[in-house]
Amino acid sequence: MELVVGPRTKTTPFTERAVAAGMTKAMVYNHTVLPIGTDDPAAEYRALTEAAAIWDVGCERQVQIAGPDAHRLITYLCARDLRDLPVGVARYAPMCDHDGRLINDPMALRLEEATFWLSIADSDVLLWTRAVAGEGAFDVEVTEPDVWPLAIQGPLGEDVVAAALGDWVRGIGFFRFVRHVHDGIPLVVCRSGWSGQGGFELFLTDGTKGEQLWDLLWEAGEPFGLRVGAPTQPERIESFLLSFGGDTDPETDPDEAGIGRFVSLGDCDGDVPGHDFIGKEALLARRASGTQRRLVGLVVDGEPPAPLRSPQTVRSRDGSPVGTLRALTRSPRFGANLGLALLSPPWFEPGIELRVNLDDADRTATTTSLPFDLSRST
Amino acid sequence: MELVVGPRTKTTPFTERAVAAGMTKAMVYNHTVLPIGTDDPAAEYRALTEAAAIWDVGCERQVQIAGPDAHRLITYLCARDLRDLPVGVARYAPMCDHDGRLINDPMALRLEEATFWLSIADSDVLLWTRAVAGEGAFDVEVTEPDVWPLAIQGPLGEDVVAAALGDWVRGIGFFRFVRHVHDGIPLVVCRSGWSGQGGFELFLTDGTKGEQLWDLLWEAGEPFGLRVGAPTQPERIESFLLSFGGDTDPETDPDEAGIGRFVSLGDCDGDVPGHDFIGKEALLARRASGTQRRLVGLVVDGEPPAPLRSPQTVRSRDGSPVGTLRALTRSPRFGANLGLALLSPPWFEPGIELRVNLDDADRTATTTSLPFDLSRST
Repeated sequence: MELVVGPRTKTTPFTERAVAAGMTKAMVYNHTVLPIGTDDPAAEYRALTEAAAIWDVGCERQVQIAGPDAHRLITYLCARDLRDLPVGVARYAPMCDHDGRLINDPMALRLEEATFWLSIADSDVLLWTRAVAGEGAFDVEVTEPDVWPLAIQGPLGEDVVAAALGDWVRGIGFFRFVRHVHDGIPLVVCRSGWSGQGGFELFLTDGTKGEQLWDLLWEAGEPFGLRVGAPTQPERIESFLLSFGGDTDPETDPDEAGIGRFVSLGDCDGDVPGHDFIGKEALLARRASGTQRRLVGLVVDGEPPAPLRSPQTVRSRDGSPVGTLRALTRSPRFGANLGLALLSPPWFEPGIELRVNLDDADRTATTTSLPFDLSRST
Repeated sequence: MELVVGPRTKTTPFTERAVAAGMTKAMVYNHTVLPIGTDDPAAEYRALTEAAAIWDVGCERQVQIAGPDAHRLITYLCARDLRDLPVGVARYAPMCDHDGRLINDPMALRLEEATFWLSIADSDVLLWTRAVAGEGAFDVEVTEPDVWPLAIQGPLGEDVVAAALGDWVRGIGFFRFVRHVHDGIPLVVCRSGWSGQGGFELFLTDGTKGEQLWDLLWEAGEPFGLRVGAPTQPERIESFLLSFGGDTDPETDPDEAGIGRFVSLGDCDGDVPGHDFIGKEALLARRASGTQRRLVGLVVDGEPPAPLRSPQTVRSRDGSPVGTLRALTRSPRFGANLGLALLSPPWFEPGIELRVNLDDADRTATTTSLPFDLSRST
């Protein structure tokens, strides 16, 4: 079906350029258009893994928390400890509800001493944050500022951004960022992005300059083989970057989603106290319960499958349901069909042979740990 | 662009039937596909206003609040007083944040003494409700149940539903509902829906029965001229039904949105106390400030305009910005171009001539009160 765009579904400052450059497929993410593919996915994958790709990810909205209680509030909101986050540094910071369920997995950025962004995945963290701030009478302003990320990803991504903004960007470390104005275009330049190929996210802080920024990068990228692209399913599954709301269901906790190492619980007995945050008690109880599922890799037999339209039940060899296949792709890197499945204990152990029905046929699927490393099993 | 559906964007139990019946355009609403149009909008409008239409509105998700504190929590969440809401009755109940901003405008249903649904517009009320419940230690369970609304709207909508379920449905009053199981299909049958043409919303409480329900209605509707359709922009603007997130911006309060009469503030001086709810103090202060905008009608000169892709600035005759055009349609009923605009004081008074730029040309636009009644001005 054709996606209808209107006042309720925002476009970004880059949408027209992305469409003009060849994007023909889209999703909606944070009430905003996310161009997700051209008609040539193989060329997109090659550009991302061999050269560089430009992505309109303006749909990654920012929730800005500013004011005297901003640091105290963001520390309470995030399961990862942000008490020592310096200005100029970003940190991947899962957020949970009071029952330990993952509600988003943003990148938290400290812009100033008392100004933070949560650069969010697809759920209304603005509402969540305002609810907690309002109920707790935190002295903060919580807003969605005029900020629009544009990503340059790929092995030559740094060269593209350096050609556009200057060689100084090469000095920016991973998950570090710098404020910079280039030719009147105000930016926060951050080394980050939703691929395993390296690159930058350029947070444009004036939506009227979107096409100027796009054109600058497009021109600078030409010698490096820059192509239009988008968050790429095969690459992100090969590299295992979590897709919140895709890989996870509404009950998933961070441990189940494979991002438990980004949750700061002190030591598990609570002898070394961590920070206080929403969901902490529930997460300790979940860890103690032995009922947690786990997101693991599945290597699925057979021909390249059709795109997964909805999660599929995974079964044991005797036909009992043991979990759900949440993502599936044909991997160019491994020449195999890779899936991500949320499985009950003990089925998530590596090397277990399971079954999944795809395109009306049963296939064999073998569990493996994440990230995928198929060389280990051959 | 083509809408990509996958595990992160849910389909509904009716999506396949809706597509097979001719839906070619879609939006995403509450992370769920909303089929929004066929290739023949004129026929859709005729069916809705002269016969009956069937709409896949499974994207209207339910937030279920159940438990000992459920009634106390929903009363605190909603700006409309729900203290006397009986079982079996629905009530349109705007929700605000602590600053009086509208965060959703759901229909609240009391299913049992201590079980409620908020049948929501497009924002994550599930997160908002869980945040407030968790921070306030309310003894409730907040969930998104397996419930999928399917709407039958239009002057013959009652006949269609009566033919499918029995003549007893004719006895259901406006915003009243009845639980009913038809041939194994469990339903909550409610006389409601997002049109001014009358009809029902059938809340299917078992997603596996979606195609069975669709087929039942489709067959029953054939003699009455039932056609596939969707929430219809010309009709809902003619009838003035608010589109949350479309007609409103993130700062809009219920008074500005034209739904202030559904906010229970007691008397405005606070002498007669209403119920306590989130945003009450802020709404009283907003009403006292004299700065509130107002959503009003605009009658726009000229040829039928192209669909509005993004809000457009409305200007006074001397060119100063006075507000924003948020919705626009060609009205078959009035033979005129009708807009909804959020205007600053005093520009929202009826009969003021303003300007708006559409398709690169300035047009004259005249304010009018809502709902539209163009006979009054001729």
